[in-house]
Amino acid sequence: MRRKFFSESSAISEPVNFSPPRKLGDRSPPPPLAAEQFELCDNLDEWSRSPHRHRVPPKYRDGNTIDWWYEDFAERERWKGLLSQSGLKGLLAPLLDAAKMWFVIVCTGIGVGVAGGWLDVLVKWLGDLREGRCTSSIFYNSVACCSGLDPGEVCNEWRSWSNYLGVHSILGQSLLQSFIYIVLSVAFAASAAVLVVTYAPFAFHTGIPEIKAILGGYVFDSFLSAWTLLIKALGLALSVASGLSLGKEARHSGPLVHVACCMAFLLSRLFVQFRYNEAHKRKLLAAAAAAGVSVAFGSPLGGVLFGLEELDTFANESDVMWRGFVTSVIAAVALQYVDPFGTSKLVLFQVRGMGEGSWLAFELIPWLALAVIGGILGSLLIRLNVAIAVYRRNSFLREWPVLEVVGAAAITAAVNDLVSDRVQSSELVANLFQECDPIRGDFHGLCNPTAMWENVFLLLLTSIIKIGFTAWTFGMMVPAGIFLPTIAIGASLGRAVGMLTQGLYKAYPKAWIFSACPPDPTVRCIYPGFYAVIGASAMLGGVTRMTISLVVILFELTGALSHVLPIMISVMVSKWVGDALGEDGIYASWISMRRYPWLAPIEYHDNGEVAADVMTSTLGLVVIENGIRLLELDELLKTWEYHGFPVILGGKLIGYASRDKIITYIQPILSESGASNRRCLFVEHPSSSATEPDTVDLSALVEDVMQLRKEVPLELVVNMFRKLNLRHIMFTQAGELTGMITKTDIVALSSAHFPHTGALAEQRAT
Amino acid sequence: MRRKFFSESSAISEPVNFSPPRKLGDRSPPPPLAAEQFELCDNLDEWSRSPHRHRVPPKYRDGNTIDWWYEDFAERERWKGLLSQSGLKGLLAPLLDAAKMWFVIVCTGIGVGVAGGWLDVLVKWLGDLREGRCTSSIFYNSVACCSGLDPGEVCNEWRSWSNYLGVHSILGQSLLQSFIYIVLSVAFAASAAVLVVTYAPFAFHTGIPEIKAILGGYVFDSFLSAWTLLIKALGLALSVASGLSLGKEARHSGPLVHVACCMAFLLSRLFVQFRYNEAHKRKLLAAAAAAGVSVAFGSPLGGVLFGLEELDTFANESDVMWRGFVTSVIAAVALQYVDPFGTSKLVLFQVRGMGEGSWLAFELIPWLALAVIGGILGSLLIRLNVAIAVYRRNSFLREWPVLEVVGAAAITAAVNDLVSDRVQSSELVANLFQECDPIRGDFHGLCNPTAMWENVFLLLLTSIIKIGFTAWTFGMMVPAGIFLPTIAIGASLGRAVGMLTQGLYKAYPKAWIFSACPPDPTVRCIYPGFYAVIGASAMLGGVTRMTISLVVILFELTGALSHVLPIMISVMVSKWVGDALGEDGIYASWISMRRYPWLAPIEYHDNGEVAADVMTSTLGLVVIENGIRLLELDELLKTWEYHGFPVILGGKLIGYASRDKIITYIQPILSESGASNRRCLFVEHPSSSATEPDTVDLSALVEDVMQLRKEVPLELVVNMFRKLNLRHIMFTQAGELTGMITKTDIVALSSAHFPHTGALAEQRAT
Repeated sequence: MRRKFFSESSAISEPVNFSPPRKLGDRSPPPPLAAEQFELCDNLDEWSRSPHRHRVPPKYRDGNTIDWWYEDFAERERWKGLLSQSGLKGLLAPLLDAAKMWFVIVCTGIGVGVAGGWLDVLVKWLGDLREGRCTSSIFYNSVACCSGLDPGEVCNEWRSWSNYLGVHSILGQSLLQSFIYIVLSVAFAASAAVLVVTYAPFAFHTGIPEIKAILGGYVFDSFLSAWTLLIKALGLALSVASGLSLGKEARHSGPLVHVACCMAFLLSRLFVQFRYNEAHKRKLLAAAAAAGVSVAFGSPLGGVLFGLEELDTFANESDVMWRGFVTSVIAAVALQYVDPFGTSKLVLFQVRGMGEGSWLAFELIPWLALAVIGGILGSLLIRLNVAIAVYRRNSFLREWPVLEVVGAAAITAAVNDLVSDRVQSSELVANLFQECDPIRGDFHGLCNPTAMWENVFLLLLTSIIKIGFTAWTFGMMVPAGIFLPTIAIGASLGRAVGMLTQGLYKAYPKAWIFSACPPDPTVRCIYPGFYAVIGASAMLGGVTRMTISLVVILFELTGALSHVLPIMISVMVSKWVGDALGEDGIYASWISMRRYPWLAPIEYHDNGEVAADVMTSTLGLVVIENGIRLLELDELLKTWEYHGFPVILGGKLIGYASRDKIITYIQPILSESGASNRRCLFVEHPSSSATEPDTVDLSALVEDVMQLRKEVPLELVVNMFRKLNLRHIMFTQAGELTGMITKTDIVALSSAHFPHTGALAEQRAT
Repeated sequence: MRRKFFSESSAISEPVNFSPPRKLGDRSPPPPLAAEQFELCDNLDEWSRSPHRHRVPPKYRDGNTIDWWYEDFAERERWKGLLSQSGLKGLLAPLLDAAKMWFVIVCTGIGVGVAGGWLDVLVKWLGDLREGRCTSSIFYNSVACCSGLDPGEVCNEWRSWSNYLGVHSILGQSLLQSFIYIVLSVAFAASAAVLVVTYAPFAFHTGIPEIKAILGGYVFDSFLSAWTLLIKALGLALSVASGLSLGKEARHSGPLVHVACCMAFLLSRLFVQFRYNEAHKRKLLAAAAAAGVSVAFGSPLGGVLFGLEELDTFANESDVMWRGFVTSVIAAVALQYVDPFGTSKLVLFQVRGMGEGSWLAFELIPWLALAVIGGILGSLLIRLNVAIAVYRRNSFLREWPVLEVVGAAAITAAVNDLVSDRVQSSELVANLFQECDPIRGDFHGLCNPTAMWENVFLLLLTSIIKIGFTAWTFGMMVPAGIFLPTIAIGASLGRAVGMLTQGLYKAYPKAWIFSACPPDPTVRCIYPGFYAVIGASAMLGGVTRMTISLVVILFELTGALSHVLPIMISVMVSKWVGDALGEDGIYASWISMRRYPWLAPIEYHDNGEVAADVMTSTLGLVVIENGIRLLELDELLKTWEYHGFPVILGGKLIGYASRDKIITYIQPILSESGASNRRCLFVEHPSSSATEPDTVDLSALVEDVMQLRKEVPLELVVNMFRKLNLRHIMFTQAGELTGMITKTDIVALSSAHFPHTGALAEQRAT
């Protein structure tokens, strides 16, 4: 029970200013708000009201949780200070303030858009480099190299390595190609891993779990450092180009969200108003996160809704939502203007030629099947990934992260190279969404009607292989995302199912189930490309357990409104199936594995428990008695590492005093001679003052705490923690302290069902 | 101070179950939760724990505010009851439950879509009927009548009245036409007004203020009755067809939102789970509201974001948001399938021919000007509208609503008929968004380059006239919306500015400001159609003060992503300007005029006030002393109409007892002989029981209340009311009652700046 009270549990700290009965029979008006509430403010009338208070601003270290109420108060005080300035200054200051905010937002938006665009270029170039080089300049990728040719013309500029190095024997060629391909892949992956391990350990895998925790109030500045930004971007390009199972596109949602947040964080440090206000800073980070998603998929609305649903940050604050929206749009526009490949293609995978946007009732059967499969495979992928992550942590692999990456890269490259290029070809995923169209030619034989069974087999093989590789790759020490591999898996599955349905239809065009289709099988009736979209959405639903933002993102893919219905259904069904097989999505799993203090934005339902069943009773608490001698107090602080202590007077709760503040305050006094015997008073009484010889007035350090009755249902407690951003609640009985619940307890509670909670937690200490 | 405690103030009632020190020195474990918390639940273990508790479910009357916590608890208990059922029943019950919910959602969606579609048809037909009739069948509108003709062919089926009635003299024709036009307009308007006044007084104007209040917990069932639904839909069609200044389209956001909510409400009454749970019901209403907007503008995402931003209902509850999204999509798809005019036109005004989606920097100057004008005119419109509404209430017009409508209709029709038809022509608004295009022909001479000044003059005239008429019409006893008239005003302004800019460019193509344009003025460089969009968004921003949902709706209009930036800028600027001129948007103004208990979803900022400055101190409160004689209690209840009373024991607060419950409980006892002298005990002590001769145990009626210290800053109090859906907070000092704040006080506080608060409040009593 006591463990959770160590400050590393990072959840115990200054609570809201709520009203405990301060002292029984106390008729005098109680003191005003704790001075700490008014740190950064200019007008210190509060301050003047309490002469002998000491300004101890909360010092946040990585691993702490911020005090929302304090931050908000500080911000509002600062704002009032601005407004209260006289004359022109008073008029301009607020404008200047807003200007700074918008500066950060606009710059972040542009930055993310540009970064996303150029990552694409970099990846394309590195990827092509594994196949060959452009004779005109090695810095051209195959497309740029052969651009500006007439349709008929053959491109001689781009030459495969074997051709370039003048190897002529077929065997020699294929061997050389494979060799260079694998070597370069491994080299890319290795360098990415080395960069991450040596310079920015936090730049690995997607950043979304951390971002969620940070937006929830977790302090983790080193996760947003400039180094992390640089390494994340570079490493992402390298690892993607290395052909690891991360999809082939550089615009990964997760890593881009991380990059965006780093940008916003660094930009915000330019201005005092953000640097000193964690809450204010987080509102910018939320906007940046939305922009990241917006760029990743070219859907600004998807970004906003992602921020709403997944990050749960815009709740009740339409201005924050508005900022997020502006940032996402600017980012999307910036991406469009960068337009790396001259194709002003904003969305990641354009879905084309999808009929006149109509679908037939019987198609719901294969689609529902896909949804169920997606839900099952999704939670399978999560379980695999978690198991591998836990194994990695507890096995020798922990010591050899780079080696693991190299191995993975080598195997992946070999597999890609063996199992014909079609399985992993860079355009495959995009083409899975395309309808076959004689004019636009065949996509890797996907449209070859005779090779139906072969295609289906290859697609299924692809998805199975990719599930394995993805579960392994996601969590290695390289930047990686989960969205795109999942899309690839789902799309392959979906396309396979679509082709099967089509084949079935071609075989039995007269079957009653196909009665809605024209009897002539040559007329197109089934669009496998859209089946791929359904498959992707089902798989995503199963893995991420997102709903509306997912649908919006895929909606902007297909465009047709009537196609949103099937997408919605598949997402919903796969989420249901997934939830039935395991509560948490992949992000939530990682959050609980690393034990971040994060409360899921879902309503918590107890089974009739009350607070008393969860709280640490008074017996388990270390409390400070009013009137304790300074020496004893110092002892107590030295003995117990807790973040703070309840202060009581004859059993009645007075308030809460945080360890840091007491130490800062009593250190100087302790140095005085004979001070150690003085009594510490935490309640003011008229005569008391610091000058009094044998007492020390510590009442300034006492903070009010929220009090409830321990019979309150647990649901209510959890929801209060969520809605009011509390960090602990004390339970009293007619003023008597009976127990205490901290945010950590609540977090532990909500992740209790998850077997591997905290499996990767130590990592946080680094 | 006392006024606000009358139950009509509708905001005082059962609060959250929070922990007051129940009784000083009380060591015995306090009783479990008040039994009222577990009314509708099946498993009454809570119940059994408290033998002598009486089940008094809150009876809500119109004008009350619901008890969110109670409703949520009841719902969860019900749910647990379902799950706890044994065997197959336990498995199926939850599924059935979900099925019912989805049934309501899907039906609502389809219903709204269909309603929206057919309202369009009805309006078109009625509107055309004022001009003439179709000889083949009077039930065809001009389009349907002349459909199926070859391009060249002339339509003889549709004939104007004069033509139909065989009047030949020019004068006679025009006179007859004007006569019939005006008479029919007045007839339509009058019938709409009569319907509303006699059958459904709540069906008048937009329903959004009421919907906001209802979703905020206000009980107003008669507003959602079947009659209201019918009259609202029919009356809307009539009043729109009558040519009153409501725009010409039937798909009005406000009324459609109202219609949608009525549908959801009526459907929800089919199932016990909704009928008996107000909170659950409101979640459905929120989804329906989103669907209403989705149909009104054909933008499902706009609907969802409207629900998020304006109604503030999806906050923290992604499942509610999800439902809203599903409903909106289904509604939009349904509308698309109904497709009244064979043109599968989903969005209200399609914007076409808007160049290659590029805009030039210098255009920001006219656009910013438009934004500022929009902000100013927007708040002007609001002030006018409020002034007229207040005047209407306090003048003879109050007694003659139908007369007023008739007058308005007559004047409007006359003006429309005099000021040439172009000013009000039904297609004008739509055409304002169109670019001039030789192929698609001229729109009412808008594209006639020679008539530039005339057009500009007419457009400005239109907008000025419409501002006046709209401010008058919106609030009369006919269904009306504010969105479309505002769009019309803004579009006219915008188009005018666009034409001026274009004219300027044509006059001085070489001016440095136009350097970005090609020097040849015949090449198109400025697109007045998009200026109309900017104007509309600016005007809407000024009137409604919405941000993100507005932009999304207009975004789905224009489609081009790069055009979202200017729209965003204009909305933002006009909102700033508007806020500077008057805090509230039109909806907020109406809410405060009718004094609905609604808290704006914005953060409240105090100026250093604390709770003590606002609360009603103990002197102003009527309290029940523990041990009061039954007779006295009865007297007190008869004397004071308050919704409930604090119960104290020697100055210490015990809890809160609501009037209804006490009455229900003591009535039977009072009838007993000699009961009147028995003492009422509100605190349990071991020996107490109902059987004891000279006491009555009322402890079951005592509810716990949330307690704070009266030095808590006001901001915190307001935000707690908002975030926790509280209805009152008591302020105590070491257990002693010092004061009380109710939700009404908070509402009054947040609408204090508004001069006409409650000007129309009595209406609510009807």
